[in-house]
Amino acid sequence: MTISGNLLIGGKETRGSNGEFFGIEAATGQPLPGSFGGATKADVEAATTLAWEAFDIYRETSLEDRAAFLEAIATEIDAIGDDLIVRAMAESGLPRGRLEGERGRTMGQLRLFAKEVREGKFQELRFDPADPNRKPAPKPDLRLRHIAVGPVAVFGASNFPLAFSVAGGDTASALAAGCPVVVKAHSAHPGTSELVGRAVQKAVEKSGLPAGTFAMLFDTGIEAGQALVADPRIRAVGFTGSRRGGTALMKIASERKQPIPVYAEMSSINPVILFPDALKNRAEQIATGFVSSLSLGAGQFCTNPGLIIAVGSDGLDAFIDKARQLLPETPAQTMLTGAIAKAYREGVARLEQHPEVRLVAHGRKGGDFEGAASLFETDAASFIAHHELQDEVFGAAGLVVRCRDAQELEEVLGNLEGQLTVALHVDEADLAEASCLRSKLEMLAGRLLINGFGTGVEVSPAMVHGGPYPATSDGRTTSVGTLAIYRFLRPVSYQDFPASMLPHSLR
Amino acid sequence: MTISGNLLIGGKETRGSNGEFFGIEAATGQPLPGSFGGATKADVEAATTLAWEAFDIYRETSLEDRAAFLEAIATEIDAIGDDLIVRAMAESGLPRGRLEGERGRTMGQLRLFAKEVREGKFQELRFDPADPNRKPAPKPDLRLRHIAVGPVAVFGASNFPLAFSVAGGDTASALAAGCPVVVKAHSAHPGTSELVGRAVQKAVEKSGLPAGTFAMLFDTGIEAGQALVADPRIRAVGFTGSRRGGTALMKIASERKQPIPVYAEMSSINPVILFPDALKNRAEQIATGFVSSLSLGAGQFCTNPGLIIAVGSDGLDAFIDKARQLLPETPAQTMLTGAIAKAYREGVARLEQHPEVRLVAHGRKGGDFEGAASLFETDAASFIAHHELQDEVFGAAGLVVRCRDAQELEEVLGNLEGQLTVALHVDEADLAEASCLRSKLEMLAGRLLINGFGTGVEVSPAMVHGGPYPATSDGRTTSVGTLAIYRFLRPVSYQDFPASMLPHSLR
Repeated sequence: MTISGNLLIGGKETRGSNGEFFGIEAATGQPLPGSFGGATKADVEAATTLAWEAFDIYRETSLEDRAAFLEAIATEIDAIGDDLIVRAMAESGLPRGRLEGERGRTMGQLRLFAKEVREGKFQELRFDPADPNRKPAPKPDLRLRHIAVGPVAVFGASNFPLAFSVAGGDTASALAAGCPVVVKAHSAHPGTSELVGRAVQKAVEKSGLPAGTFAMLFDTGIEAGQALVADPRIRAVGFTGSRRGGTALMKIASERKQPIPVYAEMSSINPVILFPDALKNRAEQIATGFVSSLSLGAGQFCTNPGLIIAVGSDGLDAFIDKARQLLPETPAQTMLTGAIAKAYREGVARLEQHPEVRLVAHGRKGGDFEGAASLFETDAASFIAHHELQDEVFGAAGLVVRCRDAQELEEVLGNLEGQLTVALHVDEADLAEASCLRSKLEMLAGRLLINGFGTGVEVSPAMVHGGPYPATSDGRTTSVGTLAIYRFLRPVSYQDFPASMLPHSLR
Repeated sequence: MTISGNLLIGGKETRGSNGEFFGIEAATGQPLPGSFGGATKADVEAATTLAWEAFDIYRETSLEDRAAFLEAIATEIDAIGDDLIVRAMAESGLPRGRLEGERGRTMGQLRLFAKEVREGKFQELRFDPADPNRKPAPKPDLRLRHIAVGPVAVFGASNFPLAFSVAGGDTASALAAGCPVVVKAHSAHPGTSELVGRAVQKAVEKSGLPAGTFAMLFDTGIEAGQALVADPRIRAVGFTGSRRGGTALMKIASERKQPIPVYAEMSSINPVILFPDALKNRAEQIATGFVSSLSLGAGQFCTNPGLIIAVGSDGLDAFIDKARQLLPETPAQTMLTGAIAKAYREGVARLEQHPEVRLVAHGRKGGDFEGAASLFETDAASFIAHHELQDEVFGAAGLVVRCRDAQELEEVLGNLEGQLTVALHVDEADLAEASCLRSKLEMLAGRLLINGFGTGVEVSPAMVHGGPYPATSDGRTTSVGTLAIYRFLRPVSYQDFPASMLPHSLR
């Protein structure tokens, strides 16, 4: 399949004239076929202007039409066939099985939101009937619905080239809410983005929707993305990436004449708390699960378990011993980009050289584009004293924090920043102690797990992939699961409207 | 009833040592009995520390206990008796009838939220059952509830000394959500605040809740309020007041180490659009309603109709003529404070001196502490060219914008900032034209009204008292009505929890 490297604006393909870049093969660092043109400010404005024009029509599409459109996107993505997987494998270095699963998840998300749209509950309709006889004043007729906030800027994520990029969770939930979407494609997988972008464009056309309903831009640097967030026609932002990137967008959004919400999913080290009895009874089993979760996808998950917290015990020693035994057998894996691999090596080196940190073990050493899992250990006092030990090292790096007792473990928890997930490994005899922590942990993270790891993120109604700052910019929401649609809605109340003027849903 | 002027912290009364100030009789500018001590930084910290300590217990109170507590507050406010009305009349200059109504509304809000708490729907419980046989991976058990965000800072509003102050809508909705509240009392009605604050304190004690569940601070300037918003234990802010005050709090909140949401209801001029047939058929009747709404409560409502937009016609002339006839008969009214009366006079003078603005009529002239209604007129082109004509003049000042035609009227709408309300006056023949505007108006305001004025704000499930920035800091919410509770909640997901560790509501 030909890669044109074009921007997708207004149902057309346009060559971006703001610089040129290439898709890079993750495993080799070599350029892949096709060159991509970066968007100029004029391209950004063209996309947002069309999105704004499309907004009034798109947001008032019937629930059935909108649901069918989401399903049409899934169908078009499916129709790309294996070319999509092949290109995504080359650009991301992720294996076929993972990408096929991710494609399934991407289509599944779109279909789940289609179902959500059809059900229509997200509109949260409310009716307060009039009471003309009420004293001292008659009661008016009030009706409420939630409407789409406006065009949404979505930033593709490097670590989910399909499920959290061009037609990923942010795009699906924004489109479901009735918001046109302008995607800033991630430069780590531009060819994958183009293929998916064209699929969305086709679905827009086949569904007879305004061409401005969807656009996709490339950016050789950060200017186009920044211009997008600053654009007055953009009314919300979805982002998954680094804390530096997310906070930069938050700042731009808050300094606009009309500030807008930024839903940035930024960084998390996803603490795993090992309780005494669980360690006593099945330290090795937990270690096996941990090493597997730590190294999954080269550790490039937002929910990667980067922190193990436990009170020192024979069980903890056994856990560490098992991890020390397993890690050297764990193969290195190609990372998403050369820059990510380099940053990972630097992060691991910082931990290695940290005076208060001891190495447990490294995984099997890999090449320049690969990341090997690494596990370190420190004590609670050092962890508390050195805030930098909380910095996410994106990749398969883990740190065990050994506590003197349960009280020190609580102190460690009290020093943690906001997280996406906290996992607890407990056996029957640990339940009472673990229960006492629940309240503290609820304030720390958006999702709490028992006897598991956070790396599997269900796309379902009860999922929260979110959490207090700095895990995300806005802990009141989730970016995965059906609740994500609420990020892009606002309530409007209609008072004493004649039926003919009311939106259909409120008549 | 004695006014102590004390801060209310931890179930006790404490004299604030950071300066002294007095309640001022609005009608005379003279000090009232009782002197008030401002909170020091230590007082702020004492209040927030206790609030944080109370949080874990308070947020896990049973729905019944929490509802009963809200009702107990209403009962204690009722028990203050007429002393509350007398003091509020003196401090605010508002008439007895209005304040008795406002007291009823305050108690009604508390009881409405009690009902909302009992029903429990605000927790938005979600259940995704496990499926151990799912391929390729078993599906975990996921359950979701919404929990309280943490202690909330509430800033009392000058214009609602009861319904949007110490135990007003923000406090009621935050307490309903499970958040302890620290109130920064408005210095325009400190005695009223103290009486209500003590009532809340009594309800806390009688309900057996932690003393930190509620605190009330006085501030001689802005330092205590600023320290409150910057305090790491405060997790959300409710504010009703000026745009300057609201945006200052937004800035502090966004620059915290952990940014927090600020729900600031700031300024709105609440456009009223008069359609041709309505003007043709009943210009005088609409003018009568308008002058009454404009001058209600000396115009000191967030939803005061400050802007009339219409296409020039005989009907519009008749409307203006009727207003010109009615206004001089409209008595001046005591304003909330001398500073507000002065700012109002200055705002009116700016309009009078504006080269593009013509006076329609003034209301009956009043004294230094009173505000007289004033109506002005300009043309659409001037209104568009002079952005300052959109600045809210807090009080009973109105501006008629005369448009050449429907297209120019749309241009005026396109130039407006976010609003709380937009009202449309229409007759049967106007409906088609008005319907075409609905979509634009939905993007402009949180509440749209037909043939009414926004000054009556129902406290009900379908009310939105909110709107796009700068009407509020966050257009995704409302500060009035039951939907307000959602401002203070965030979702948490529980994965594979044993029943004994789950919150009761999710078992």
